[in-house]
Parts: sequence; C-alpha cells; structure tokens
Amino acid sequence: MASEPRTRDDYVHFRSIGTRWADNDIYGHVNNVEYYAFFDTVINAWLIDEGGLDIHRGTTIGLCAESHCSYHASVAFPETVDAGLRVGKLGRSSVRYEIGLFRAGQDEPIATGWFVHVFVDRETRSSTPIEGRLRDALQRLLVASPEVTS
Amino acid sequence: MASEPRTRDDYVHFRSIGTRWADNDIYGHVNNVEYYAFFDTVINAWLIDEGGLDIHRGTTIGLCAESHCSYHASVAFPETVDAGLRVGKLGRSSVRYEIGLFRAGQDEPIATGWFVHVFVDRETRSSTPIEGRLRDALQRLLVASPEVTS
Amino acid sequence: MASEPRTRDDYVHFRSIGTRWADNDIYGHVNNVEYYAFFDTVINAWLIDEGGLDIHRGTTIGLCAESHCSYHASVAFPETVDAGLRVGKLGRSSVRYEIGLFRAGQDEPIATGWFVHVFVDRETRSSTPIEGRLRDALQRLLVASPEVTS
Amino acid sequence: MASEPRTRDDYVHFRSIGTRWADNDIYGHVNNVEYYAFFDTVINAWLIDEGGLDIHRGTTIGLCAESHCSYHASVAFPETVDAGLRVGKLGRSSVRYEIGLFRAGQDEPIATGWFVHVFVDRETRSSTPIEGRLRDALQRLLVASPEVTS
Repeated sequence: MASEPRTRDDYVHFRSIGTRWADNDIYGHVNNVEYYAFFDTVINAWLIDEGGLDIHRGTTIGLCAESHCSYHASVAFPETVDAGLRVGKLGRSSVRYEIGLFRAGQDEPIATGWFVHVFVDRETRSSTPIEGRLRDALQRLLVASPEVTS
Repeated sequence: MASEPRTRDDYVHFRSIGTRWADNDIYGHVNNVEYYAFFDTVINAWLIDEGGLDIHRGTTIGLCAESHCSYHASVAFPETVDAGLRVGKLGRSSVRYEIGLFRAGQDEPIATGWFVHVFVDRETRSSTPIEGRLRDALQRLLVASPEVTS
Repeated sequence: MASEPRTRDDYVHFRSIGTRWADNDIYGHVNNVEYYAFFDTVINAWLIDEGGLDIHRGTTIGLCAESHCSYHASVAFPETVDAGLRVGKLGRSSVRYEIGLFRAGQDEPIATGWFVHVFVDRETRSSTPIEGRLRDALQRLLVASPEVTS
Repeated sequence: MASEPRTRDDYVHFRSIGTRWADNDIYGHVNNVEYYAFFDTVINAWLIDEGGLDIHRGTTIGLCAESHCSYHASVAFPETVDAGLRVGKLGRSSVRYEIGLFRAGQDEPIATGWFVHVFVDRETRSSTPIEGRLRDALQRLLVASPEVTS
C-alpha cells in the first residue's frame, strides 16, 4: 500500500541533496533509482555525523534488509532535494527509517519511502545490538506513533 | 511484508547483468541502490526488445509509481547477476513486475522485489492504456497466481 | 601531461557538490568516475542557470567530445566538494572548460581536469554556433591566459 | 590531442559490458561519465580474474592517477559495449592502460581513452612495486609500440 500523505512537519531531520546531471534519465527527470541513493545519503550521513558510525574502520556496519519508495511527483536536475528523515521503529539490532523527499519550498513530498538497516559485525556479518552513541542518535529521530505498515 | 521465498522457476524471463566496479560500496558488495538499477534494466530491455517501446520518440512512456526490494544475500563485482522477471498484475494502464536477482548457478535469489509502472503520454503525463504489442509482451510475463501483497 | 598546480583563485565560478553514500568505492573514497559526474554537474548547472540552456526542449545541446582528469588527493562521503569552473578556450561551436575540485577549506585541488563541449542541433547533431546568452555566460568564465595544453 | 584512430585489432583483451537504463542521459544516449565506469570495469575485472588482485583483503590496491577519454560516437541502452583493453606502458609501480569502446559488430571505436593506475599499499598509500602474478597479467596486455602521447 502506498504511504499516506505526509508533510515536512512529519520528519525530524533534513539534509539538502543537490541533484546531478546524470540523475536525469532519458525522460528528463531524476530516475527512480536515484531516490534510493538519496535515502542512503541522508541516513548514512546522520549515522556518521551524529551516531559516530565509522564506515572505514568500525566493527559495526549497517546492511540494508528492505527498502521501499512511493513516487508522487518528479524533480529534475539542477534542482535541490530536501530529504526528511525519521525513525519509525528502533529494534535491538535493526532500525526502520522513514524518508520523505521534497522540492525546495514545497511542503508535500515528491516521494515517501522506508528503509530497514540491520547492524552487523563487519567481519562475521552476524547481527549486533545498536548501542551507545549510535542508539542515542537514532532515538532522537524516533517518532511517537509511526505509520501502520504492512 | 517481505516477499516469500522464490526460485528461478518462478520467473519467466531472464537477463544477465554484469556488475561494475563502482557497484561495490565501501563494505565491499554491490550497494542496495544498484539492485533497483538492475530492476530498471531488465524491465526496460524487455519493453524495448519485446514490447516495441520507443524510449527516444514514442508517445507513451513508463513512469515508476512504486518499488520495493527485500535483500537476502550479497553479491560483489566482478560477478554477474541474473535478473528474473515476471508480471504479477497487468491493469489498464499500469503493470506490476516482480523481480528476482540470482547469482550465477544459484537457485535461491539474493534479492526479490517489485516495481509498478504507470504508462503515460510523454507530453501530458496523463495515463494511457497499455495496448497492442506492448500488452502482448507483458501478457507473456504474466503469472497465473501472483503473490498476495499488501 | 598532468595539469600544473592550481588554487581556488584560478577559477571563476564555484558550486558545492555534496557527496553521496554510493560515491565511496570499496577502497573507501570517492571513486574516480564520480569526479567526472562533478564536472558534468558544475558545467551544466552553469549552462542552465546562467546560459539559458533548455535541456528539456532547446534546439541546441552540448555533447562531450573529450575529457580528462588528474587526481591529486582523495575525498570521502559525507564530505562536500567545491567544484571550481573556468573556460580556457571558447570557439565558434565548442568550449573547453577547466575544472578544479576542492575539499572544504582547502586551497589546493584534489583533482584538476578539463572537458570539451561541442554544441550541436538536438535533432541533426550537426554543430551549431554558440550565441547570445549562452556565449555571454561562457565568456564570463573565460580566463585571459589559459594553460598550454597538449 | 585526441587519440589516433584505432580498431578492434589494436586491443588485446575484450569484455562485453551491458548498458543499463540509467546510463542514458536526458539526450538519449549513454552519458560521457559512464564511459569511465566501463574503463574501471574492464580494467579491474582483468586485475581480479587474471592478476589475482584481492580487492577485499589484499595489501596492494590500484588508485587512479589520471584518465582521459575521446568520444567519437554515441551508444544507447539497451545496447552492449565491447571494451577493448591493452597496456601502453608498464612501470615499476604504475601502469597505463589504453581502452577502446565498441558497439557490437563495429570495428571502429565509439570512444578511446587511457587510464593510469598507481599501485599502493592499502594502509599507508605509499607506492608498491607491481610483481608476480599481477605483473604477468599486465605484461600479457602490453603492446610493443604504444601510441605517442602528451
């Protein structure tokens, strides 16, 4: 089921992401695949900047288990996209992010999606608990009453 | 809900997609975003080769309305991915594809996903019926009893 | 021959380009290919914003004839890159851009490169003169004594 | 200076690279940036498959020092590109590859380029000699009389 309508107010953290020439596909707008690149970017920047995730040498890494996107409107290079982020569910070793993408100055999203990270040991790839500064950072994005989802 | 387990036998058409150097991310495997690039590629190649879709000058184009992927295992450059494709639902102007990605020689997918195309007029972006050779090509991918999905 | 050393002062226009998660390759830094995506982005954004290039419907489009990059240092997501742009040579229907990429707060480039655009008719792909607002915009980036190049 | 004309006969090794939907840009053909992704792919696949390069755990890695491409003709998804590879110069710790990209069934390249790898220690990033199986693999691509280049 497509996500229910949302607005900027529904998200906790925002990151501006500039589009690039190659994001536009043959039909003239940012290709659907790039929306997931925006998800990856707003999520991991938060984990690094706020959660202390060390993507180069840390023992814990986040792997994507599932992702989804509903497309509501288009955007095209050279526009900038504002990516809104919140956490819908924070488990022991996994987290479900909810993302909204917005054109500058618009309150209704061009796309809404979600993304599940499972944190694992970099070497063994077995799941590891989300703790300390990382959990704190995710907790700050947690919304009280997340959407009901399938 | 994550997709139920599937095998190669569940798909109708296959396309081999070579991975590229840049598909590997910092964690050493093909990044989750690229899986959607594989979806786009197997789908559109079918539409062009079998459905007669003219992406350069045709009046009808396919826009992505929704997509989803469940990640079961990893793959890394320089491996080749076999993308399996079938149609779960064929409507008047929209189609839901189901995709499975497989490593060479393996019967269980590394990822399963789905992707909804809405066909629209290139200029007005209003929905247009799927007809003629395009419908025939999609019909050939249609499975009798598609998965029950949210 | 690799480009001679340059600094920020050698460029006329700058655009900040945020890196993305997937820019990092398996070795942990932005992949060499993405540098060219940054070139494309700073160049085309200028052509659109300042030169009035209509990439959707205009009769004139710019095609890349040749490009080059010398890599001096690395950068990694989530850093931001400042792309400096100037024009080294402005011909009748072609233009040679020179680009420098900088990490925030640094005066020495992580990479220097150049890129040749030939402007052509969108349909016939025959070369067309650079005129009017487009030429004006490129003229403003022209440097008096460009580097001697091969 | 643009590279001199070449044909398939000028290259030693070939790899077929399937184009992807997103390779096409707004002008309907594979974007110039992707050509470098093809370079990266044919080169690194050779290093891994023939040279024994372990991109995941090996102590030696190859970093791009310089690259170049001259564009002669276009190609579009869903076409396949044949990437021809040879080595023009093999130094102590660096190698210069020369690459030609061809459309299926055509003898004249759509693009010719070159790419310089410097091999370094993964941790210290200081240059390391090219030895053993890796040197053997590169030696097999070496052409007797490489092009004269700037």
